[in-house]
Amino acid sequence: MTVTYSSKVANATFFGFHRLLLKWRGSIYKLLYREFIVFAVFYTAISLVYRLLLTGAQKRYFEKLSIYCDRYAEQIPVTFVLGFYVTLVVNRWWNQFVNLPWPDRLMFLISSSVHGRDEHGRLLRRTLMRYVNLTSLLIFRSVSTAVYKRFPTMDHVVEAGFMTADERKLFDHLKSPHLKYWVPFIWFGNLAAKARKEGRIRDSVDLQSLMTEMNRYRSWCSLLFGYDWVGIPLVYTQVVTLAVYTFFFACLIGRQFLDPTVGYAGHDLDLYIPIFTLLQFFFYAGWLKVAEQLINPFGEDDDDFETNWCIDRNLQVSLLAVDEMHMSLPKMRKDIYWD
Amino acid sequence: MTVTYSSKVANATFFGFHRLLLKWRGSIYKLLYREFIVFAVFYTAISLVYRLLLTGAQKRYFEKLSIYCDRYAEQIPVTFVLGFYVTLVVNRWWNQFVNLPWPDRLMFLISSSVHGRDEHGRLLRRTLMRYVNLTSLLIFRSVSTAVYKRFPTMDHVVEAGFMTADERKLFDHLKSPHLKYWVPFIWFGNLAAKARKEGRIRDSVDLQSLMTEMNRYRSWCSLLFGYDWVGIPLVYTQVVTLAVYTFFFACLIGRQFLDPTVGYAGHDLDLYIPIFTLLQFFFYAGWLKVAEQLINPFGEDDDDFETNWCIDRNLQVSLLAVDEMHMSLPKMRKDIYWD
Amino acid sequence: MTVTYSSKVANATFFGFHRLLLKWRGSIYKLLYREFIVFAVFYTAISLVYRLLLTGAQKRYFEKLSIYCDRYAEQIPVTFVLGFYVTLVVNRWWNQFVNLPWPDRLMFLISSSVHGRDEHGRLLRRTLMRYVNLTSLLIFRSVSTAVYKRFPTMDHVVEAGFMTADERKLFDHLKSPHLKYWVPFIWFGNLAAKARKEGRIRDSVDLQSLMTEMNRYRSWCSLLFGYDWVGIPLVYTQVVTLAVYTFFFACLIGRQFLDPTVGYAGHDLDLYIPIFTLLQFFFYAGWLKVAEQLINPFGEDDDDFETNWCIDRNLQVSLLAVDEMHMSLPKMRKDIYWD
Amino acid sequence: MTVTYSSKVANATFFGFHRLLLKWRGSIYKLLYREFIVFAVFYTAISLVYRLLLTGAQKRYFEKLSIYCDRYAEQIPVTFVLGFYVTLVVNRWWNQFVNLPWPDRLMFLISSSVHGRDEHGRLLRRTLMRYVNLTSLLIFRSVSTAVYKRFPTMDHVVEAGFMTADERKLFDHLKSPHLKYWVPFIWFGNLAAKARKEGRIRDSVDLQSLMTEMNRYRSWCSLLFGYDWVGIPLVYTQVVTLAVYTFFFACLIGRQFLDPTVGYAGHDLDLYIPIFTLLQFFFYAGWLKVAEQLINPFGEDDDDFETNWCIDRNLQVSLLAVDEMHMSLPKMRKDIYWD
Amino acid sequence: MTVTYSSKVANATFFGFHRLLLKWRGSIYKLLYREFIVFAVFYTAISLVYRLLLTGAQKRYFEKLSIYCDRYAEQIPVTFVLGFYVTLVVNRWWNQFVNLPWPDRLMFLISSSVHGRDEHGRLLRRTLMRYVNLTSLLIFRSVSTAVYKRFPTMDHVVEAGFMTADERKLFDHLKSPHLKYWVPFIWFGNLAAKARKEGRIRDSVDLQSLMTEMNRYRSWCSLLFGYDWVGIPLVYTQVVTLAVYTFFFACLIGRQFLDPTVGYAGHDLDLYIPIFTLLQFFFYAGWLKVAEQLINPFGEDDDDFETNWCIDRNLQVSLLAVDEMHMSLPKMRKDIYWD
Repeated sequence: MTVTYSSKVANATFFGFHRLLLKWRGSIYKLLYREFIVFAVFYTAISLVYRLLLTGAQKRYFEKLSIYCDRYAEQIPVTFVLGFYVTLVVNRWWNQFVNLPWPDRLMFLISSSVHGRDEHGRLLRRTLMRYVNLTSLLIFRSVSTAVYKRFPTMDHVVEAGFMTADERKLFDHLKSPHLKYWVPFIWFGNLAAKARKEGRIRDSVDLQSLMTEMNRYRSWCSLLFGYDWVGIPLVYTQVVTLAVYTFFFACLIGRQFLDPTVGYAGHDLDLYIPIFTLLQFFFYAGWLKVAEQLINPFGEDDDDFETNWCIDRNLQVSLLAVDEMHMSLPKMRKDIYWD
Repeated sequence: MTVTYSSKVANATFFGFHRLLLKWRGSIYKLLYREFIVFAVFYTAISLVYRLLLTGAQKRYFEKLSIYCDRYAEQIPVTFVLGFYVTLVVNRWWNQFVNLPWPDRLMFLISSSVHGRDEHGRLLRRTLMRYVNLTSLLIFRSVSTAVYKRFPTMDHVVEAGFMTADERKLFDHLKSPHLKYWVPFIWFGNLAAKARKEGRIRDSVDLQSLMTEMNRYRSWCSLLFGYDWVGIPLVYTQVVTLAVYTFFFACLIGRQFLDPTVGYAGHDLDLYIPIFTLLQFFFYAGWLKVAEQLINPFGEDDDDFETNWCIDRNLQVSLLAVDEMHMSLPKMRKDIYWD
Repeated sequence: MTVTYSSKVANATFFGFHRLLLKWRGSIYKLLYREFIVFAVFYTAISLVYRLLLTGAQKRYFEKLSIYCDRYAEQIPVTFVLGFYVTLVVNRWWNQFVNLPWPDRLMFLISSSVHGRDEHGRLLRRTLMRYVNLTSLLIFRSVSTAVYKRFPTMDHVVEAGFMTADERKLFDHLKSPHLKYWVPFIWFGNLAAKARKEGRIRDSVDLQSLMTEMNRYRSWCSLLFGYDWVGIPLVYTQVVTLAVYTFFFACLIGRQFLDPTVGYAGHDLDLYIPIFTLLQFFFYAGWLKVAEQLINPFGEDDDDFETNWCIDRNLQVSLLAVDEMHMSLPKMRKDIYWD
Repeated sequence: MTVTYSSKVANATFFGFHRLLLKWRGSIYKLLYREFIVFAVFYTAISLVYRLLLTGAQKRYFEKLSIYCDRYAEQIPVTFVLGFYVTLVVNRWWNQFVNLPWPDRLMFLISSSVHGRDEHGRLLRRTLMRYVNLTSLLIFRSVSTAVYKRFPTMDHVVEAGFMTADERKLFDHLKSPHLKYWVPFIWFGNLAAKARKEGRIRDSVDLQSLMTEMNRYRSWCSLLFGYDWVGIPLVYTQVVTLAVYTFFFACLIGRQFLDPTVGYAGHDLDLYIPIFTLLQFFFYAGWLKVAEQLINPFGEDDDDFETNWCIDRNLQVSLLAVDEMHMSLPKMRKDIYWD
Repeated sequence: MTVTYSSKVANATFFGFHRLLLKWRGSIYKLLYREFIVFAVFYTAISLVYRLLLTGAQKRYFEKLSIYCDRYAEQIPVTFVLGFYVTLVVNRWWNQFVNLPWPDRLMFLISSSVHGRDEHGRLLRRTLMRYVNLTSLLIFRSVSTAVYKRFPTMDHVVEAGFMTADERKLFDHLKSPHLKYWVPFIWFGNLAAKARKEGRIRDSVDLQSLMTEMNRYRSWCSLLFGYDWVGIPLVYTQVVTLAVYTFFFACLIGRQFLDPTVGYAGHDLDLYIPIFTLLQFFFYAGWLKVAEQLINPFGEDDDDFETNWCIDRNLQVSLLAVDEMHMSLPKMRKDIYWD
């Protein structure tokens, strides 16, 4: 489920964002506490070995190694790589959100352009609407792990009422080595053309409006599919991950407190707890987590899109709009500003 | 209310932006003075403790700690993180502004395409226009805290004349577990289709123009809803906030003036007032405030969008345009350049 | 007036951009010389005080202060803040340019779709075109200081022939607490609808083309208005300005040449003229000037849009196109490649 | 073939991206192992020469050279140049993906708007569809090396069934010094206009829908062609490549372990294997590889678009949709939510 | 002519980009060798003066100056300024490319919507097409130096067959103080409207399709004009150029090899040839050259758009498509996948 916090930041107030630091759901703490523990344990282990187990000469060697690591840790361009990479991921994530297929535009047109309050008219509108929902469901199944869990087979799709048994048969009957998610969308076109021939759709202009809108809907679907199919190149993700992990690896050794009595520059204080290194871990690992969370927004993270909810909402609302609400109108009355 | 200063910067003049530094409303000073005071008080407190309370050995320890903090303060990539984050926030904010729903395009079409100067025609146009305004009001209620305060219940919506009692009843009557802000928009379609059947709208082309425009209007509404619903991932905001707060925390200790007589490098001057640290506080905290102010532009900040004003303007203007101004035309006369 | 130099950089040649460094109009020198003089005077004053007035101990103190300032000057992230900010300003500026309302699309449609070479037909086309120009003029008046100076009252608008006296009366007569720049645009719709009824516009398709185009025109207008109304948040501009000014303030003291005989690191040369600091002033102040110049492109800077010229060109050209050129066609002859 | 890994990152989990580090196909290791070996061999060679072959004085000279190289290696702005360049390449790559021509929108319209289940009707629809596929095939041949290998001559195009012998003749017959990939697209228009005249397409609205869609299809095609024709300026690519290669060249010498006993600052440890330099090689060379892989996504890299697969899929699916599926409709039945 | 190298980088191979380093046309070497020689000569001259002419005290002074310059050279933010600026220039350049006016969409519509194979019909289609080409030619003349050289006067335009003598007369006859490139575009509208009246264009829908497409074409033209008219503000270009030139100036002195025997830090090696400084020159000057080359892509650089070729191609192809190919159709035959 998406974590919405916009109402908490409606106004810029005294230390406005500090409240956000205290949330748990969808928070950096929830996402990172395991990695944080692992990091802390390793750091402590190395620290203990250095302090308790090593002999004098070994300690000197370790100290040199630590300084060496520290110097290179600073050369790793984590900030930049993460900045550019996260910007890319965030843009893709948002584009996926704005391209989620919503049937509202189509249900509006179908309700007003496909006429007839009789059973055939109702059936026509409901079926058209069902095809719309079916198209997106087929796409969501291949894009979203959550939806796939809910509809693992076409049987589940039929059972859930998105497809009738007849449609299932015709669908399976079609011979094609390729994905067939586009099939209901052709049915939609055929059915609309038939409705036009029968006069249920009055005009070619109305028909083409429906067609254009359906094509837009399908483009949303296929764009989602495209985002899933062609992700950020694996190499890019690996480069970024390597950079961050190497940085932390270098920090494990390089950010140890060295014996102040030896007098290395910048090492005249032993705080035991490397507070700033731990905070840096939070920044960088948190920043990478932003990417991890958003790179596939159709999973089951706290911040992922609620695709299953969308599917239910769309079917319920769109059938309501084209059937029960078709031509239902409140009596027109003068508004209070009349004259 | 939005803070408009563009007329003050129309021309690039001698130290052109310095005038902007002297404004109070919507200014960095107004937004930050509380945080600034807190920061200054803490800094002073630590400074006093160091100067007056600590013994010699404690002072030496504190000095080491201060140098340690200062070194790490510089390693925190505040500039970058803020740069990327604020760019993201500003883009979202501007997209929200350009997607504010304005009924002007629709009122233009309704005024010219829905015919009839009799009472029924007037009622038709006014009702269509009212549905348009109602759709956006329902969205604004869930998006903007300011609008929600003004219309806490549907009763307030009815009272304000956006909805009639009949409509209210029909609206409540609809059974749906989901939000129903799309309902007036279906009514709009049904009413327009009816007007087409009655000949008030002359042609399917005119009807489909209205429909397309209404769909565009609804898309604006739902995009606003989307921006509210799916914000910048909480983790990202937390990462940035943590980075900035940690930086300031490190500065509180690390930017203290250390006793020049001890002779630490870079600490041979005691100015008492850390002028540059305070200015840095202004930059970074101010930059973060930009994000805080814009992340939800529907609050009540000085720089937030004046949604309530929009709602009033839209209703007043759109009713005026489709009713009083319908087919009202100044007498055509030759312009002064004729021949 | 816009400064066009593209023809000077058509080809990438030997030290291609150096010619641009020698221009005066719209140049960095013209924009900055006053600030530069102020900066140089202050720098010199401080330098003279240090060299001539201060006693030995005061000099030592000043030197420490100077080193302190220099160290912090380098910590101020001017480059980044300016990079991100100027990118934002340049994008907004360009978007405003591409959204300037040009009536060419409309005059093309009106000339070919509104028929009749008689006086009524001519009047119809000229009036429609005038409404288009009037809409943008009303917007330009509130957006551009240059246009406002030229048309300070509605009387000037009438005098200039954009509005007739009758229209003025009707316009003033409309009661609305809100801006009324949208009124001519409703008149346009009404007049076009009337022309359709009279058969001057032959088809609803033609009518809706006109309507769509007019709506596009109006969207350009309102987008310009939006850019003026909702600027870059004041806080952001203040943060950037503060950063740059603070940097220069720190430079005034921190970049003084200290007595080489005292032997501070990096201070073993006294050049009297701080050539690189002055160049840095040019970079950063110049970069900020880019923002200052572009943040409101409707002023009277050398590089601002020539709005008054646009207004004249649009009226002249569009009346010519819909009246004199209506149905005027050169005799069709075979071109030279025929067969 | 595209490397899809989105299902592996559906949820942000414990060290979520680490699994991606262990893939081979499309991975950084597969792409880089050869360069890595070359780099390692050179590094080792230089190291061995320094350690074993050089005399004392030569060693001292080499050490100075090494320190000199190291200092300049850090001045090379590899991170920035790569950041800006890769962002540009990734944007172009993604734009090419979203502009791949898919015939789905057209097949939907043809199936529903071009009527007649008789042989002539079938032929009409299949031929229209074939022209669509032919247009994109001609473009793909000049854009994609993989497609060109498969269809090296027009004979192969005819053999594969995208063109008939008659069409081939007419195509070859056309005299033009320019590319002729636009020819089938004109045939499409002519054939559609003929179908309209024959009444197979019922209305000009339907016809113009087809035309608009075909124009959109052609725009995709020509955009792909444009991306191929006008690449990122060679100079830019050369600048980036030079920067990266120079950096590695400088590292080969500058990152050698110098004899710790001589006591150069930062050289008091001899690890033999320059672990961080090798990791840096992975980051930067990997980042450049991202660009190399994406700069022309129509090659045969692991991550390139599967153009040949697209061509087959599009032909098969589109013929199926407009022929076998034309007006084929499952029997309408009440869905399970009826009343 | 554009330098196309995409086929050379189709696959990411072993040191994939190194081949690009060996090209001459459009390469960094060709663009930069003159500047490079100038830089090298100056560097050598200063080096020789320092080594051979200066006395001991002068040498010491020069060495201090050199160190001073070197320190400031590093403070100049060349990388950033160039990164942001080049990104801006590249975006503008690409937008200009995708907005080049191609008549393909229009020729497709004209060929299929303007009927009649008789001479009048042919003349009609050819004339419409000629007006389209004329519109863009007029724009190209004012935008591109290469085109202007080819068509320095309107006589050349007439001679080349883009305009007839009659049209020339009518064109010159029009009184307007403003540019008249929009005139053929009005003629197009008038001629299309006439064709509609004569029944050569069958339907208002077809007519409006043509009009919309023509408006799109004109928008491309005027956008090109806009890019030429309103360039990147001169100040920005000057700031960037100043930054780069200052950097190189500082390098000339600051990167000299100082006498190693004097023992300045970092100056214990005299390589005579400043290999890394020369490489840096290549990076930065090359990066700036990218901007120089792209800032006006209508010149005669190796990488500029081949506008004259476009003009010829467009006229030839579009006349062919609307005349010879009008209603020419290969005989429809069953494709090889039939049944």
